[in-house]
Amino acid sequence: MRLLVVNSTNSSRITDLLAEEAGAAASPDVRIIPVTAPFGPASVSCRSEMVVAAHGTLSALAEHGDAADAAIIACFSDPGLAAARELLRVPVVGLGEASMLTACMLGGRFSILTLGARMKAPIMELVNQYGLSARLASVRALERSVLPSGDSEAVDGAFLRLARLAASRDGAEVVILGEAVLPGVARRLAARLSLPLLDPMTCAVQQAELLARLRPSKALTGSYRPPAVEEFVEVACGFAAAFGPAKT
Amino acid sequence: MRLLVVNSTNSSRITDLLAEEAGAAASPDVRIIPVTAPFGPASVSCRSEMVVAAHGTLSALAEHGDAADAAIIACFSDPGLAAARELLRVPVVGLGEASMLTACMLGGRFSILTLGARMKAPIMELVNQYGLSARLASVRALERSVLPSGDSEAVDGAFLRLARLAASRDGAEVVILGEAVLPGVARRLAARLSLPLLDPMTCAVQQAELLARLRPSKALTGSYRPPAVEEFVEVACGFAAAFGPAKT
Amino acid sequence: MRLLVVNSTNSSRITDLLAEEAGAAASPDVRIIPVTAPFGPASVSCRSEMVVAAHGTLSALAEHGDAADAAIIACFSDPGLAAARELLRVPVVGLGEASMLTACMLGGRFSILTLGARMKAPIMELVNQYGLSARLASVRALERSVLPSGDSEAVDGAFLRLARLAASRDGAEVVILGEAVLPGVARRLAARLSLPLLDPMTCAVQQAELLARLRPSKALTGSYRPPAVEEFVEVACGFAAAFGPAKT
Amino acid sequence: MRLLVVNSTNSSRITDLLAEEAGAAASPDVRIIPVTAPFGPASVSCRSEMVVAAHGTLSALAEHGDAADAAIIACFSDPGLAAARELLRVPVVGLGEASMLTACMLGGRFSILTLGARMKAPIMELVNQYGLSARLASVRALERSVLPSGDSEAVDGAFLRLARLAASRDGAEVVILGEAVLPGVARRLAARLSLPLLDPMTCAVQQAELLARLRPSKALTGSYRPPAVEEFVEVACGFAAAFGPAKT
Amino acid sequence: MRLLVVNSTNSSRITDLLAEEAGAAASPDVRIIPVTAPFGPASVSCRSEMVVAAHGTLSALAEHGDAADAAIIACFSDPGLAAARELLRVPVVGLGEASMLTACMLGGRFSILTLGARMKAPIMELVNQYGLSARLASVRALERSVLPSGDSEAVDGAFLRLARLAASRDGAEVVILGEAVLPGVARRLAARLSLPLLDPMTCAVQQAELLARLRPSKALTGSYRPPAVEEFVEVACGFAAAFGPAKT
Amino acid sequence: MRLLVVNSTNSSRITDLLAEEAGAAASPDVRIIPVTAPFGPASVSCRSEMVVAAHGTLSALAEHGDAADAAIIACFSDPGLAAARELLRVPVVGLGEASMLTACMLGGRFSILTLGARMKAPIMELVNQYGLSARLASVRALERSVLPSGDSEAVDGAFLRLARLAASRDGAEVVILGEAVLPGVARRLAARLSLPLLDPMTCAVQQAELLARLRPSKALTGSYRPPAVEEFVEVACGFAAAFGPAKT
Repeated sequence: MRLLVVNSTNSSRITDLLAEEAGAAASPDVRIIPVTAPFGPASVSCRSEMVVAAHGTLSALAEHGDAADAAIIACFSDPGLAAARELLRVPVVGLGEASMLTACMLGGRFSILTLGARMKAPIMELVNQYGLSARLASVRALERSVLPSGDSEAVDGAFLRLARLAASRDGAEVVILGEAVLPGVARRLAARLSLPLLDPMTCAVQQAELLARLRPSKALTGSYRPPAVEEFVEVACGFAAAFGPAKT
Repeated sequence: MRLLVVNSTNSSRITDLLAEEAGAAASPDVRIIPVTAPFGPASVSCRSEMVVAAHGTLSALAEHGDAADAAIIACFSDPGLAAARELLRVPVVGLGEASMLTACMLGGRFSILTLGARMKAPIMELVNQYGLSARLASVRALERSVLPSGDSEAVDGAFLRLARLAASRDGAEVVILGEAVLPGVARRLAARLSLPLLDPMTCAVQQAELLARLRPSKALTGSYRPPAVEEFVEVACGFAAAFGPAKT
Repeated sequence: MRLLVVNSTNSSRITDLLAEEAGAAASPDVRIIPVTAPFGPASVSCRSEMVVAAHGTLSALAEHGDAADAAIIACFSDPGLAAARELLRVPVVGLGEASMLTACMLGGRFSILTLGARMKAPIMELVNQYGLSARLASVRALERSVLPSGDSEAVDGAFLRLARLAASRDGAEVVILGEAVLPGVARRLAARLSLPLLDPMTCAVQQAELLARLRPSKALTGSYRPPAVEEFVEVACGFAAAFGPAKT
Repeated sequence: MRLLVVNSTNSSRITDLLAEEAGAAASPDVRIIPVTAPFGPASVSCRSEMVVAAHGTLSALAEHGDAADAAIIACFSDPGLAAARELLRVPVVGLGEASMLTACMLGGRFSILTLGARMKAPIMELVNQYGLSARLASVRALERSVLPSGDSEAVDGAFLRLARLAASRDGAEVVILGEAVLPGVARRLAARLSLPLLDPMTCAVQQAELLARLRPSKALTGSYRPPAVEEFVEVACGFAAAFGPAKT
Repeated sequence: MRLLVVNSTNSSRITDLLAEEAGAAASPDVRIIPVTAPFGPASVSCRSEMVVAAHGTLSALAEHGDAADAAIIACFSDPGLAAARELLRVPVVGLGEASMLTACMLGGRFSILTLGARMKAPIMELVNQYGLSARLASVRALERSVLPSGDSEAVDGAFLRLARLAASRDGAEVVILGEAVLPGVARRLAARLSLPLLDPMTCAVQQAELLARLRPSKALTGSYRPPAVEEFVEVACGFAAAFGPAKT
Repeated sequence: MRLLVVNSTNSSRITDLLAEEAGAAASPDVRIIPVTAPFGPASVSCRSEMVVAAHGTLSALAEHGDAADAAIIACFSDPGLAAARELLRVPVVGLGEASMLTACMLGGRFSILTLGARMKAPIMELVNQYGLSARLASVRALERSVLPSGDSEAVDGAFLRLARLAASRDGAEVVILGEAVLPGVARRLAARLSLPLLDPMTCAVQQAELLARLRPSKALTGSYRPPAVEEFVEVACGFAAAFGPAKT
């Protein structure tokens, strides 16, 4: 089974990291195909970057997606997810949605830990878009200034404090580490927390495998049917050219 | 990997059917362990039967659950699901929830097809309990009187009409066949419908495997921590005796 | 008028307590018929116990319910309530629902005080099942460790602090003492609180009397019509035998 | 026990009708005190009339309310209800709210039958204000042109058709006859419908009796505490003079 | 363009203040027509006053409304707003709704600052009536006791602290100063706050001008069509006489 | 006053049309500055096109936005709207949101008429993102095949039928013509419909003027503060270069 893993940023260093994490989470017979968005922001930490990342991600998926058995948008805010499901023949999952839905099977309400207070509102909006607001206990954010120190013990400790506050004050029964590129943190935190803690990449890889095995029919009616070529003509970047003909 | 499949009814004939369906949906290295509830209704098609089935299912899980890697409540109304997550150390999934959450990854709103109009309201209540009402397009029911004929073409045709109405009138983008024991129907319908159609047993087996692989921490705090023995003393059926000590 | 009061636990000592409280709340011409569930947990303070209690309560109701004019499930989490309404010809009320709906007639949002933090989430879920989440200000819990002292002044003081926090911080305009077996506490608290405070047993007895006087038609269509005997066959405990024939 | 029944319109003929209906619904020891609003519309069938009726009703309650044990706003749209609860020391119920909350104890979702299509939206807004939208199956309206005929069989038949559509198409499990002045209709319909059907006046009288027996504390804090005299000064109609001093 | 500005209280001093504020907010070619409600409370700071103010406001609008191009209900709780839209041929806006809808165009969630804790619940109920609860971050109240000092720096400082708490703790992205008669406060606060802060009168005047320019059709069907004269007959105050005939 | 009007598609013919419509809707002293997105789809009629259009629109806004007094995203699905509010110093409105919020001031629930059934679900999702689902009566779609005929009477008639169904069946009190480029249709329909009908471009131009006059503070805290240059680095198209330095 081939899983496409799209890095929504333009950083190949992050692509390598994501590929490694995805590989560690995948079943033995799965081949991870990492792709960097053809253009995109350095990170996805505000709404403007989400918009650019959605386009870059969709471009990557349009070019490479249908050659895989399923695709993963390797970014917690799931840029371009609904559009990708419309465009591609194969299933597509996003880190945010995959971890939230998995959390729903492990307890009542979940909290999401993120980096940077400015992403709290966009993540709450994302949860609302998925119709899951009733399942959200809280979004709690660690300031990015904590991170550069490189002191993993300090980072772990800070996240652990957030997770415990989510449980004791917000009523979280499951905690999601809402960041794609914090290697090892989820594993270490899980061992120290008396609640289930989910790593989004692991959830996304596993759900992508699951959907690939289900082989659901591609919608040919309704709002998720693929756009017709004549409908979808874009001048920039050869985007339409790349996937358009495949839709006829 | 061992997956416990609990039949919430008291019919061993149905247990055999469910075991066969589960086996067909499982990965090669998975061993299905079928169990019939020690007591229960003949079918789960009203609220009273849901109550009895929840107890019978929980009893079966209490006795057999922690010996498996994950457990499946093989009934669409998920009797006893939240309690089972509290009680067991291993993940538990229900057919209803597993198929609804899987549907969320394939489109916007889903419809559920069921047997017997009296289950429409309980299923809508179930969707609301999961916080997913915003994702529900409709619940549509086929009258049971259609079934005894044994004419599978007629049954398929009736469900196909329901599914198409769900799409055209209710805006469903994904359809869930909300019944556990209709062998082959989901597969045949999927081939004739231009939308994704989900079989609950397949979704449940796959999600149970996924959660077993994740090996999430058992909650030791919050409302999903296991009940203390001194809290949980029941006189009937040796229920407490069966799993109580394991919780100390 | 005869009101059946079902103790959802298996403790006859609690049945006596509940009968006394119910009697004190009832109108002069009402005869309280106390019944202990034929099986059940020692208390109902987690989801697993709610499942067992629902079955035990339903069994008691099936055996004794239609001989009364209305029935009361004397437990705040209302185990088996919806199923009982389906099964019985006479009205059934639960302590939780009856007090919440009564609270709605006395102010805007209500708070519920409970014993043990692990019941906070299940009570919030109950409120959501009733569609009343928009009316809920908060659920606040007193740890059970406060109780054994037997110092009623300390217990009263602890609940009073919770009630005042519910008003000042959570915006509660009405407070519900969400426990069935705290004799005298509600009455004493009411005298010291400058907001309406409701005792669930009093609300339930009064609402049961009210519904018995209304004599509403039993639903013979829709999801609350009684299950047909052929639908409802259970092997354990002679449950089906007890009420089944009465439904033909 | 004395129950004040306020007619929100200015028609003494309707006051007589309401008093008769209330008397028929009340317990033997209850004395109904009918009051006509000092000013008001001829009927309450649009938003403008609701505004005037709320003021007239509140004026009547301010003058007569605290002399009774509880008060009833005898109009389905409950004009002035929340304000009355703030102003009076005794409980106040409205026909709309009392019947909706009673319906919640008899089934899952309820439908409301009303007169005149223009009240459909205001009634839906009322249900939303009470936080009960999740419990509403539908509002169905009979055109007023059906009524003048005086042919009670025709009126009954028309309402019966609405009630049956509410059940079969909208999923109603309980039906509320959302009009105060249709003597005998609810009783006759109840006998012909296979679902519980509620008469708002009966529900309101019974709930008012219940609250009067509960004797809940008047809120002295929060948003339902009575307005201070210095806060509430109104020049028209001697309104403030009537109840103001009583609040000091 | 003529904008009617209705003071919902009976204080002509406040009418002068409101007229001045409205004039300052209006476009050059707009003529402000200030009107005091023919009767009403001294201020609108509890539910009872909201009821009386709604009637007084509606009376003023009935008499003067259709002579203007649009009308403004110059009170944050929008007394009589929906009824006014039904009754008048010209657009009507309220300070509360106009500022909330304007806030929706400037950020995600808004907070409302008000005077007096007892208005917190009614304002939350208002937001819910408008279907905007998902956009509300919080309502925060300044106690009225802060105001009499006349020390505008103290008042400004107190509101500024509230606004900053709304942002930092409640996640507000826009702040609404929920009071009509605090001249100059909004302007001064806006200069000191690093978020958009809205003055309700300015929003209302601008939205009223906008709607007047749109000249939308008056609804002649549905629940907002004007009441028929025969439907709307009121005995008090010559209210019906004033506007009734104009509706024929 | 200068209003930037961004055409989210790549068609300069449509830009001319939009500029003309915007000019007709604007106040005399307003200068419309039309801009075509530097890249984008031919139309915005599916989720994939919404993603590309959001990026193209944001690029145009980043380059031209802060030179105007306010900006308009001239597309009903508001591509890039929240991100634009984060990025720009001046107010930004979208046709969809502006018309929905304006509709809220004219009645209770609104319906949206659109072209092509596949946009129904995305528009419902948009309404949900704005927290306005409780105000939505329905989305009704005209199939695009109706249009090419060029027979404006046929188009008008088809929309008029949709609008009337929205009122009579769905309970709409206001109708929004959810398309940007149907010159003259809204005006002609408004004259034939007995309910308010809104043209999105007119609403957007008017709301943009209103916000420009309000001159709200740009958020410098919270999730709408502008992204820091170091956060926002994009390699493609010189996007970051265009606006990045302006943010320091």
